[in-house]
Amino acid sequence: MDALKQKILNEGTALSDKVLKVDKFLNHQIDPELMVEIGREFYRLFKDQNITKILTLESSGIAPSVMTALNFKIPVVFARKRKSLTHTDRLYTAPVYSYTKQETNIISVSDQFISQDDKVLIIDDFLANGEAANALISLVDQAEAEVIGIGIVIEKSFQPGRDMLEEKNYRVESLARIESLAAGEIVFKEDQN
Amino acid sequence: MDALKQKILNEGTALSDKVLKVDKFLNHQIDPELMVEIGREFYRLFKDQNITKILTLESSGIAPSVMTALNFKIPVVFARKRKSLTHTDRLYTAPVYSYTKQETNIISVSDQFISQDDKVLIIDDFLANGEAANALISLVDQAEAEVIGIGIVIEKSFQPGRDMLEEKNYRVESLARIESLAAGEIVFKEDQN
Repeated sequence: MDALKQKILNEGTALSDKVLKVDKFLNHQIDPELMVEIGREFYRLFKDQNITKILTLESSGIAPSVMTALNFKIPVVFARKRKSLTHTDRLYTAPVYSYTKQETNIISVSDQFISQDDKVLIIDDFLANGEAANALISLVDQAEAEVIGIGIVIEKSFQPGRDMLEEKNYRVESLARIESLAAGEIVFKEDQN
Repeated sequence: MDALKQKILNEGTALSDKVLKVDKFLNHQIDPELMVEIGREFYRLFKDQNITKILTLESSGIAPSVMTALNFKIPVVFARKRKSLTHTDRLYTAPVYSYTKQETNIISVSDQFISQDDKVLIIDDFLANGEAANALISLVDQAEAEVIGIGIVIEKSFQPGRDMLEEKNYRVESLARIESLAAGEIVFKEDQN
């Protein structure tokens, strides 16, 4: 997705050979028009799959997910990283370790919002080691619903997340795939459409 | 805003005389088309004010903020509740106590994303005691930017948040104002347009 890759080149920063900072348009400040384009692209990729629900993780997954869901005319559910007092339903839970925050969170989703009949598209901002994607898949599995695919805004292709998910036969669609962040330079995978 | 009030009546639950659960369309599951309508309404209310940025708080403020920002063609910045390793800029910070989560968070925003020239519309999902709104105002003040107004999706008018903000001369626009949640019944303020 060219607009996204251009944005990453113009406004992203390789903080190290593993960490890409995209605070200017995705993780802290959000560019709403880019989110619209991201939503259109995920819709184009998955529109024939009878998706009934989008599942994401707070907070940076919410904006791209809502824009995608608008195209499908379906709801978004965001898994929570912490418990709320208004969270009184039975919960599906899964642990997820965040390398950028250096902590393990138990993420959760109410059993009210994913059911056996759901065909779920999982969306997240980043795919690196696949920890978050795995945890979201576990929530869908606990609901006995079906994961149709995993839509990722930015994939760090030099980390093992995609391979791990593909070995389990999940379809992964990443809008930007980064081959390397070495020496402060952002390099995309050449074979990407 | 009728569509919102209808949604609150149909899908909201008064968990106690103070706590309204709106997990089905705002705080956990999100209805994207309702977010579009919310975005249009905030735009209608503030469109003549030369707003340059929307400031909200993760996570439930993000969806209505992004939809509003799309109308204004401006960015959203969401204040974070926890520090990230990619958060390397100087931060503006403020404490905020959450009654529903029973904890104090230090919320923060990078100094890169609010500047002296900004005219900021603060958007949040709920207004109750005004703790979050106050903290967001403090972040804008630290940046020496201007708060143009505060847009709230659901106001609990029986709690002191609005009065406190109006005493400080802030313009508060709430799309649904709730007078009472007593005895499990959701009652809106009658004088609301």
